[in-house]
Amino acid sequence: MQTEISKLGEFGLIDHLTRDFPLRNPESRLGVGDDAAILDMGDNDTLVTTDLLLEGIHFDLRYVPLKHLGYKSAIVNFSDIYAMGGDPKQITVSLGVSSRFTVEHIEALYSGIRLACEIYGVDLVGGDTSASVTGLVISITCLGTAPKGEEIRRSGAKPTDLICVSGDLGAAFMGLQLLERENRVGAESGDPGFQPDFAGKEYILERQLKPEARRDVIRMLREHGLKPTSMMDVSDGLSSELLHICKASGVGCRVYEDRIPIDYQTALMAEELNMNLVTAAMNGGEDYELLFTLPLTDNEKIKDLPGVKMIGYITEPQLGAAMVTRDGGEIPIRAQGWNAFTQESPQTEDTSESTPEKE
Amino acid sequence: MQTEISKLGEFGLIDHLTRDFPLRNPESRLGVGDDAAILDMGDNDTLVTTDLLLEGIHFDLRYVPLKHLGYKSAIVNFSDIYAMGGDPKQITVSLGVSSRFTVEHIEALYSGIRLACEIYGVDLVGGDTSASVTGLVISITCLGTAPKGEEIRRSGAKPTDLICVSGDLGAAFMGLQLLERENRVGAESGDPGFQPDFAGKEYILERQLKPEARRDVIRMLREHGLKPTSMMDVSDGLSSELLHICKASGVGCRVYEDRIPIDYQTALMAEELNMNLVTAAMNGGEDYELLFTLPLTDNEKIKDLPGVKMIGYITEPQLGAAMVTRDGGEIPIRAQGWNAFTQESPQTEDTSESTPEKE
Repeated sequence: MQTEISKLGEFGLIDHLTRDFPLRNPESRLGVGDDAAILDMGDNDTLVTTDLLLEGIHFDLRYVPLKHLGYKSAIVNFSDIYAMGGDPKQITVSLGVSSRFTVEHIEALYSGIRLACEIYGVDLVGGDTSASVTGLVISITCLGTAPKGEEIRRSGAKPTDLICVSGDLGAAFMGLQLLERENRVGAESGDPGFQPDFAGKEYILERQLKPEARRDVIRMLREHGLKPTSMMDVSDGLSSELLHICKASGVGCRVYEDRIPIDYQTALMAEELNMNLVTAAMNGGEDYELLFTLPLTDNEKIKDLPGVKMIGYITEPQLGAAMVTRDGGEIPIRAQGWNAFTQESPQTEDTSESTPEKE
Repeated sequence: MQTEISKLGEFGLIDHLTRDFPLRNPESRLGVGDDAAILDMGDNDTLVTTDLLLEGIHFDLRYVPLKHLGYKSAIVNFSDIYAMGGDPKQITVSLGVSSRFTVEHIEALYSGIRLACEIYGVDLVGGDTSASVTGLVISITCLGTAPKGEEIRRSGAKPTDLICVSGDLGAAFMGLQLLERENRVGAESGDPGFQPDFAGKEYILERQLKPEARRDVIRMLREHGLKPTSMMDVSDGLSSELLHICKASGVGCRVYEDRIPIDYQTALMAEELNMNLVTAAMNGGEDYELLFTLPLTDNEKIKDLPGVKMIGYITEPQLGAAMVTRDGGEIPIRAQGWNAFTQESPQTEDTSESTPEKE
């Protein structure tokens, strides 16, 4: 009997495959199932995270300049280390490169990785580069450190904890919609000199093309003496991440629809495209904001944190995970986040024939 | 101006891309350019290595059962850690999986990874799984430990040091030739019940399909109190690795043709296929044996090491790298090792349409 992978989904498949791997080494303190693994290598703990980015699945080179792609590839890994309360220190970069790429293309990609490393103080310490018979493959592993035992896992949320999120949500997803629309319009116009119209939409574009990891939020929490009980970065969408925290912590949650932070440009774009704004903010993904929980007693301190919004609270598990709508109703939260194994992915075209842009 | 990647080759490209990445963190002791990076995370040093394996480039699922592929994918990483004198402790596994694979296929792959982890005492601590629009992508990163400052780099070889290699060479390459021939014969026969003839060739097959990392050699060296001045694993071929050591150490070398260790089955297969045996042993690759140098004063001790052969010695740099032939002549050593960016690769067919075997 053969089982389609889409039956399990990405997280189901990982759970399924990794459940028979016991940890044998005393240094391996936490394995699969959080933003990063935790290794006890000495004075500090070592955090490890890895991300695989595949052309045609995670990025489309018709929209994304290679330098931006390099920057983002590094950032998504740094974000996972910050989401554990750690500091990224080293990365390894493995590339699979098909023959349509030149050295200059790969240099552009690396220039983005280099910029991210410079800004975030991370060292490139290794990697592997290979030919590929198909598209571009980028695999980055990031190591970080955290003071021993100070990591923030997904599993520590407790009923009555307050749920907070940094920045705003849905903008990266709307930026992608914009890129896809302008690409479509350009192709249909048949005009080789077609210029996409991004005026007044710079913020959502930047959120898609050049996301940042929220090191500033981690530092602010430390400065205010705030230690989250659980934390994740929002890569697959708020709904998906809330469910991860609820599952790992054995709790439920309530988030208020009218407290979800959304930027003006995101709202405008959703209206222009006739899309549901809250759905985009809850399920769009690629925000790389931090989602975390704090004890109820930190309530007053949260108000002093610029750019951090309290969006709900943790409940007993039997109450499940739900969004409280503007009219006081409740809608169960479902994981409609980005899942590359289903058709929900925002980028499903096979772009293996497209020409990479160099910047 | 655009530059073809094949102009630089794999190592040239890595050198080119990584030269502008200074190490900023005090924990990053050694970056790109050896079998593994060295990180100072506390009581011990942490070693990091990563390998990217792409379908159609590094493996062909018409010959290689998925369980074997999983095993080998893990082993090649462990081998890099042993080649630094360390012990592998953790791996992360990232997979890109196209729609022709089922859960059972991926389970078979993981069962091989699991077996390797069990045998070598390594923990799986993380990873990423994604859809792929093309073939199978396997990216593994391995972490290991070594007592502080005890790592064995490529750069420590000194003139008069003796060059040693474990096991024998060229067998994995000949195993691949055998697999390719039987696959061709089977396809040409048109007989769906065709059975490949592997009788008397089990050793070279196993060397190709199920290589081992030489943990036993590392332990033996420790037990005998022998500390190599330089070490590498033989993944791309002896010629290529000798040149790496010579370049990193700033030395030359002489190796004796008649001392290259070659198994009987390897020799027989080369004769059957009318291939040059020494070329296969020098350039075949995928042996995962250990190549290392020891001070001349360890000469007597080397004789007591079963399965280790002294094949030559390190010279002053101006003498270059050469093989001393049976008749006393000298042939310069050139890197004809496996290079996926040129046509020298033993596997260049696009196999994205082949059906993966499950075992």
